[in-house]
Amino acid sequence: MADDHSGEDALIARYFKPLATDPGAFGLDDDAAVLEAPHGEEIVVTTDAIVEGVHFLADDPPDTVARKALRVNLSDLAAKGAQPAGFVLTLALRGADDAWLTAFARGLGEDAKLFDCPLLGGDTVSTPGPLTVSISAFGRVPAGKMVHRTGARPGDRVMVSGTIGDAALGLHVLKGDRIAEALAGDEAGRAMLVARYRVPQPRDALAAAVREFANAAMLALGVAGIETLVSGGDDYEILCTVTEARLEAFAAEARRAGVALTSIGTVIAGAHAPRFLDEQGSEIVLKRLSFSHF
Amino acid sequence: MADDHSGEDALIARYFKPLATDPGAFGLDDDAAVLEAPHGEEIVVTTDAIVEGVHFLADDPPDTVARKALRVNLSDLAAKGAQPAGFVLTLALRGADDAWLTAFARGLGEDAKLFDCPLLGGDTVSTPGPLTVSISAFGRVPAGKMVHRTGARPGDRVMVSGTIGDAALGLHVLKGDRIAEALAGDEAGRAMLVARYRVPQPRDALAAAVREFANAAMLALGVAGIETLVSGGDDYEILCTVTEARLEAFAAEARRAGVALTSIGTVIAGAHAPRFLDEQGSEIVLKRLSFSHF
Repeated sequence: MADDHSGEDALIARYFKPLATDPGAFGLDDDAAVLEAPHGEEIVVTTDAIVEGVHFLADDPPDTVARKALRVNLSDLAAKGAQPAGFVLTLALRGADDAWLTAFARGLGEDAKLFDCPLLGGDTVSTPGPLTVSISAFGRVPAGKMVHRTGARPGDRVMVSGTIGDAALGLHVLKGDRIAEALAGDEAGRAMLVARYRVPQPRDALAAAVREFANAAMLALGVAGIETLVSGGDDYEILCTVTEARLEAFAAEARRAGVALTSIGTVIAGAHAPRFLDEQGSEIVLKRLSFSHF
Repeated sequence: MADDHSGEDALIARYFKPLATDPGAFGLDDDAAVLEAPHGEEIVVTTDAIVEGVHFLADDPPDTVARKALRVNLSDLAAKGAQPAGFVLTLALRGADDAWLTAFARGLGEDAKLFDCPLLGGDTVSTPGPLTVSISAFGRVPAGKMVHRTGARPGDRVMVSGTIGDAALGLHVLKGDRIAEALAGDEAGRAMLVARYRVPQPRDALAAAVREFANAAMLALGVAGIETLVSGGDDYEILCTVTEARLEAFAAEARRAGVALTSIGTVIAGAHAPRFLDEQGSEIVLKRLSFSHF
């Protein structure tokens, strides 16, 4: 990790050293880490932060805060067709709460192992403000093979992984929204939606197929047919476009990976804003096309 | 940059796109960046965050906040013997203040150019708390050549770059401390110390020599013979150990690079804590060996 601050060193040694299993992490004893890029591969870099009260709730279980911070970044890597290689963590804390940090480190360690993405280094800083977790994650792709946002061609089918809107509904359930609770159905439905809000599912199993079949890909933070869901964000699913002729092969790969895929449209030439139709084919007019922090 | 949030997209396009000059940044239009690692080289990764009210003052000029955030990371890379390759930025803001962001982006862009370390990507998030700038920076070294913290050998001379303690004094000057003001001498002295606090000088010019000559190296956040300076932190100088026989060659490289070097001791065998002597050779007893956030 980065500094030579005795309090920080103790905190890091206690909670995070066991997670630094990659040889390039040097057991967090150094000021920096090393990422090896095998010949013919490139390193894909992404960075995302989550803030208490903005991206997670103050009383969310600490292990889910860690998982969400890492998984948001892993979702980005998957959408780019990259395999996880490691991550660095910056933790801005109001203080060192042993129980909170223990659970946070446990969640982080379990997910790092699950997704084969080891902790390489990091920094802890003191803040009087909300707890903030900032992660930069690294992935590997064969040189030149990262999948870009641009690259969609007229006629491409637009595909989205998983389901969209669950996370936004889960947040509404946590806030006691009655409509969301009714939509959730029973206790199991509510728990599923809350889990989707707190712990997104990175589509890492789809990364290789995206790299092979997608002409363009990005994270779908909110694309669906109902306004509140479109604007809800927090889904972290892959939105990609695939040439019609290759669609069945891509869908077969997704089935093999156990990831649901839905066709939500077709790319047409021109500079129109995307339009959303309901099940009857009538256009839905959206007030906001995406979530804005500012 | 990372998300598809319209407010964020506009902010990024306006202030940061001009800084993304590296081809691997894709003009910040994508969700991720690509770092190429030429065959035989490795990527060194470091991450450091600075927090308003903790590492910089709320009324520090915004361009100096940007410079400090980047330079702290560049100092880490230099201490590891790495040449800058790029960085990603996470900015946690209370709101979008045009004048502040314009000056911040200008300072960041000028330093990115000066140190040949382009912006590759990033994330902006909203926070109700203090402004926080988190940077992960990347450097390149020939494979296996990163300089580690461990590796010092008995008999090695301990060398430090630049001067230690200026930054801590500069902070005291900004806080109106009379002793610091008296030590600063005149207005020019005060301005120099304040500049040392606000804008550290990365010793990038020394990176190649550190890689060639140092057995061990780290950032010296505060090592000197007077307690307030030892504990002051914020210096970001390189502390390294060099075999006695190679000392003159290392010093010659430092002179060529225009970086001052001071010998502050010799490595001795054993597990003693380091001891500090005054000019008369008497031991100085330190209450705190380094700055602790917690």
